[in-house]
Amino acid sequence: MTNAAGRFAHVTRLTERGEGEFAGELSPAWTIGDKPNGGYLLAILGRAATLAGAHRHVIAASAHYVRPPEPGPVDVETLVLRAGRSASQVRTRLVQDRALRAEALVTTADLDPGSAPYWSAGLPAISDVPYDACMRLPSPPSGTPVALMDEIELRLEPDSLGFLTGSPKGRGELRGWLSLLDGEPFDPISLLFAVDAFPPGTFDIELAGWVPTLELTVYVRALPRPGPVHVLQRAQLIDARRVDEACFIWDSGGRLVAQSTQLAGIRLG
Amino acid sequence: MTNAAGRFAHVTRLTERGEGEFAGELSPAWTIGDKPNGGYLLAILGRAATLAGAHRHVIAASAHYVRPPEPGPVDVETLVLRAGRSASQVRTRLVQDRALRAEALVTTADLDPGSAPYWSAGLPAISDVPYDACMRLPSPPSGTPVALMDEIELRLEPDSLGFLTGSPKGRGELRGWLSLLDGEPFDPISLLFAVDAFPPGTFDIELAGWVPTLELTVYVRALPRPGPVHVLQRAQLIDARRVDEACFIWDSGGRLVAQSTQLAGIRLG
Repeated sequence: MTNAAGRFAHVTRLTERGEGEFAGELSPAWTIGDKPNGGYLLAILGRAATLAGAHRHVIAASAHYVRPPEPGPVDVETLVLRAGRSASQVRTRLVQDRALRAEALVTTADLDPGSAPYWSAGLPAISDVPYDACMRLPSPPSGTPVALMDEIELRLEPDSLGFLTGSPKGRGELRGWLSLLDGEPFDPISLLFAVDAFPPGTFDIELAGWVPTLELTVYVRALPRPGPVHVLQRAQLIDARRVDEACFIWDSGGRLVAQSTQLAGIRLG
Repeated sequence: MTNAAGRFAHVTRLTERGEGEFAGELSPAWTIGDKPNGGYLLAILGRAATLAGAHRHVIAASAHYVRPPEPGPVDVETLVLRAGRSASQVRTRLVQDRALRAEALVTTADLDPGSAPYWSAGLPAISDVPYDACMRLPSPPSGTPVALMDEIELRLEPDSLGFLTGSPKGRGELRGWLSLLDGEPFDPISLLFAVDAFPPGTFDIELAGWVPTLELTVYVRALPRPGPVHVLQRAQLIDARRVDEACFIWDSGGRLVAQSTQLAGIRLG
């Protein structure tokens, strides 16, 4: 078992059981409805890539979700496509009951703790609403159970809470903060989960039930400082019953540490 | 040979030579320096996915670039990961001289010509500078040759031309129009190229030479109308000698038809 120092590290741990082959266990607690969260699955695939390749940190990962797995044992298969000096490229596959559930291409490198942003004017503005002014999103009292909400501390800004009372703002944006429990710090693996932890930005437009992820691409840009991360989840376009969403994650020092884009199905339009 | 009705269709044509295996030819004309453009390679991988899978149109494609290929013959290998009712998921690989050059995961579906956007307020504003007010970007007279520029008509808005005279605007944005030659209309395959056709948005910040793509993810959202497409290429963050760029493509009717994100190396910072 690797790195089982915190709750998230524990539910994403892998045991090597052959050349590039790993065994893991999907937790029933990291689910929406009865399905494991897509970012959680990508974190497991990302961990496998760091174990199989020659570099420590995921810098880019793109997953296509094939069939939702159930909580329980999974196999993770990896193939190093290229082991370069500065980066490795690794194909990873999540398999359950001999059926492929998700496949991801992952690029790993060694992130330098001493690097600094050179230009960041193309990013959305980071919000200045402090952690304590945001409300913890509870596990919903009715409808689809979201066990995941009890495993993290997800706080939304007051302006992002409209969907709870039937009065969304219509901007397609949710902003707030995310922490792992018991002070577990974020790292490049848990950032792969963080970009998919928030409710869909479409909740700020219209509630439309489950929004299943078809494709999720994440870039990890820097090693995060300890502490909660600031999250912006933003829908861009709903067309042909699909929505794309962008997510931006800043660490507690205000540095952009991860970003993602995803395409998901939606029952609107 | 498939679909060789126009110049772009011709340079992306594939011949089936076995179960899920195709032969293609990388044109020396679709290059920057002596390397084929990354979007051009993704278009070939996307075409292979539509030929291998049960659906006609690429809706999501994510490529990791492993080793740049040279112009000349290539093999394209495909594996259908899942053939569903409404979508197929296909792994595609571009191989030259028995070495993997790029691998992509592709989701295909059938785009409905009758669909309409349901909500688009999360998109950047489309510019209103008309085609004729934009300047065709020539193949550069010195420095790295960009043969690709003679194969397309790429026009930039006056506000995006600062880099040509050493006075970039510093916004990290280039806007303009793109056409294929001889009136060849765009389709979901050539849109995979279109998102990578513009110079990097970083030209509007600082010229820094070649910006090699590490990862490129594209979503095709609708079938484009005939005519030139409107392009916004935008850098978001330069950190640790990598830059991410988003690209948005609107058709001649002003509908968002494709969008992408890419992570690239850059010699800045």
